[in-house]
Amino acid sequence: MRFRIAIVAVCLAVSTFGVAQAKKSGGGSAEPALRAQEDAWLKAFQAHDLNKALAFLAPGAVAMAPNAPPAKTQKELHEAYVPLASADTKINFKADYVAASGDLGVTSGPYQITMMDNGKKVDDKGKYVTVWKKQADGSWKVVRDIFNSDMPAAH
Amino acid sequence: MRFRIAIVAVCLAVSTFGVAQAKKSGGGSAEPALRAQEDAWLKAFQAHDLNKALAFLAPGAVAMAPNAPPAKTQKELHEAYVPLASADTKINFKADYVAASGDLGVTSGPYQITMMDNGKKVDDKGKYVTVWKKQADGSWKVVRDIFNSDMPAAH
Repeated sequence: MRFRIAIVAVCLAVSTFGVAQAKKSGGGSAEPALRAQEDAWLKAFQAHDLNKALAFLAPGAVAMAPNAPPAKTQKELHEAYVPLASADTKINFKADYVAASGDLGVTSGPYQITMMDNGKKVDDKGKYVTVWKKQADGSWKVVRDIFNSDMPAAH
Repeated sequence: MRFRIAIVAVCLAVSTFGVAQAKKSGGGSAEPALRAQEDAWLKAFQAHDLNKALAFLAPGAVAMAPNAPPAKTQKELHEAYVPLASADTKINFKADYVAASGDLGVTSGPYQITMMDNGKKVDDKGKYVTVWKKQADGSWKVVRDIFNSDMPAAH
């Protein structure tokens, strides 16, 4: 009887350990990988490599730029990200909030961008939220991306 | 020896079951609760009950309205959500994307709002992403909330 209790105790310990590991692997430990992936995405924009930047999008990704309907098709997504990767664009963003649990991740923070709009230099700064989904191959890809400006609206 | 193998096999089975349960509890099963919580949040705005709406925010929540810096303090958060709960505001939003894993959740979709701006009626529609964190009491609360308009920018 005492032996059976010991077996149950060992099984419970192993089981608890397993649950703890599963929670851990789905929890905070993914955040450095998510930060690194966001940084790699930024570097693709900074290198003006639009195709590389678009490769960070998961199937079904939606980009939500201000003053335009959500971009869903390949053509719309391409158009949505063109300004961020243009040769004369300078862009920077870095998350001050990173959360990950299981296959779901979120990064959010401030952005700064300088770009040409109809021959006019535009400086903008604002904030963004990017939602990431861990793919079957273990890589994090973007499923939703939204941002807006801190600057007063033009009137 | 055979008995030890049996113990190990049982332990592995229990452990695997534990991991599977942990993953399950952190997965898709939270999505109905998240949808219900978002709907309750909408109803607080529709009832013009600002205090009730603000109670859906988690400690440290940041609201990211367009054309303003991120709202972080209680005063800023109050100001950010006043227009959504005003007596003459009509608001609607409903997620077409809901994801939850462990204590992290995301809702995203379209919004429509009609409000008075300096005595002028303004119709707006756009999209949003809301990030939710499951609290110690099991309730989902908002940690990040961002939206922008689909309408062309005023020039």
